[in-house]
Amino acid sequence: MSVTSNNTRRPSAAEEARTLVHSTARATLATLALDPAGHPFGSLVTYGVLEPDGTPVLFLSTLAEHTRNLDADKRASLLVVAEGGSESDILAEGRVTLLGEAERLERDDARVDAARDAYVAANPDAAGYLGLSDFSFWLLHVSSLRWVGGFGRMSWCEAANYASARPDPTAPIAASAVEHLNDDHADALLAAAQAFTGHRDAAAARAIRVDRYGVDLEIDTPEGRVTGRAPFDPPVEDAAGLRAAAVALTRAARAALGSEVG
Amino acid sequence: MSVTSNNTRRPSAAEEARTLVHSTARATLATLALDPAGHPFGSLVTYGVLEPDGTPVLFLSTLAEHTRNLDADKRASLLVVAEGGSESDILAEGRVTLLGEAERLERDDARVDAARDAYVAANPDAAGYLGLSDFSFWLLHVSSLRWVGGFGRMSWCEAANYASARPDPTAPIAASAVEHLNDDHADALLAAAQAFTGHRDAAAARAIRVDRYGVDLEIDTPEGRVTGRAPFDPPVEDAAGLRAAAVALTRAARAALGSEVG
Repeated sequence: MSVTSNNTRRPSAAEEARTLVHSTARATLATLALDPAGHPFGSLVTYGVLEPDGTPVLFLSTLAEHTRNLDADKRASLLVVAEGGSESDILAEGRVTLLGEAERLERDDARVDAARDAYVAANPDAAGYLGLSDFSFWLLHVSSLRWVGGFGRMSWCEAANYASARPDPTAPIAASAVEHLNDDHADALLAAAQAFTGHRDAAAARAIRVDRYGVDLEIDTPEGRVTGRAPFDPPVEDAAGLRAAAVALTRAARAALGSEVG
Repeated sequence: MSVTSNNTRRPSAAEEARTLVHSTARATLATLALDPAGHPFGSLVTYGVLEPDGTPVLFLSTLAEHTRNLDADKRASLLVVAEGGSESDILAEGRVTLLGEAERLERDDARVDAARDAYVAANPDAAGYLGLSDFSFWLLHVSSLRWVGGFGRMSWCEAANYASARPDPTAPIAASAVEHLNDDHADALLAAAQAFTGHRDAAAARAIRVDRYGVDLEIDTPEGRVTGRAPFDPPVEDAAGLRAAAVALTRAARAALGSEVG
């Protein structure tokens, strides 16, 4: 039996967005300027992420232009761009724009401790700023979001889906897993390509991305180079489970191919 | 005679902004969303720079959200952040927000060729997109800008000053010049610190930044570590002139100190 790539689950836009937001701590905040009034204004910020719903936490100076803007109009968006992407093909990088309203937390607000913890977890070197009296924590209450995965992959996403999505547990080790698979397990990748992408006659396969649901493959076939996907079944629940999932994928591929080669 | 750092010229906010805008080709565009209407919306773009006035050139797909936004409301800003800064102290990085109105260039517009040349000069790998029929060139006509040089250094800037400012000609080689001065010319830096910053008793000095007007120094004195600045006189007009300016600075410092050591 060969399973075509049509059957394989991919991360949803909400999951992609949630993973992206957790992958870095710098973003662009867009607010509405005071002068000229209502003009869109972009500025650099650092942020953390509140669990369980992925609400961004900002730590803003009253001296900053964006803070004066938010004091007058709470509407804002936060653009997060994947880091470490290709220098020559910037627009292929994943990014997400979270739209919502910002709320300043007063010092005695019961949510300040959780906000501070989330911010410091993402910005460990920011401890030196935390005592500054002209800074406050702000939450961005997300109402909708726009995710772009690269050329042609994009969608709007409901805030509720973002709030309930889990960041991909494999994300912190996905890049090294791709490298390891390509360096040491070319045979397993080829078996996965042959068994799961409908290309029984594939000659070679390379991993190009790993996520909780599977592996994206670049496959050499007699008809040329194609892409396909091999599924993790069940999905990976935590980073430690990625290795076992890859072993299970290889075993399933070889079983499907009728091979007994371990 | 020792010259104090008060006498030394620094790049203006307009010059800093212009230099920053020329230093990279990626930025965040902030526009006004269609839904929810008027909500600030940040998105990732690549850009080039038109000479002589520094007008940013964008190349936008009609499929992109920001393009639909601009079609309805031309107001926009472009946030450019210095690249290669400290990972642990992101907010110390220079950045500038250019505010203005965007204009789409029709295909037969006489300005398209110059716009394309400016865009491709900054995005050499973009040649593959240029033929796409759903992309257009856009200009951002800058009306004002907000520059932030790091903690505590920030100002608004007139568009006319930005338009007439020259990017710093030393910027492309400034980082390697700093390294070279520190590796091979510690004696010259010490002489410059002693002669030009009012610290005759300095024990050592390191370059921390070079620009067309001078060198920022970190200086060890009996009272502790301080910062100061030594001027290039005259300012550097092109990258090739930086070495001669550094030699002239050293000579002037030694003459001021009454030393004949060449």
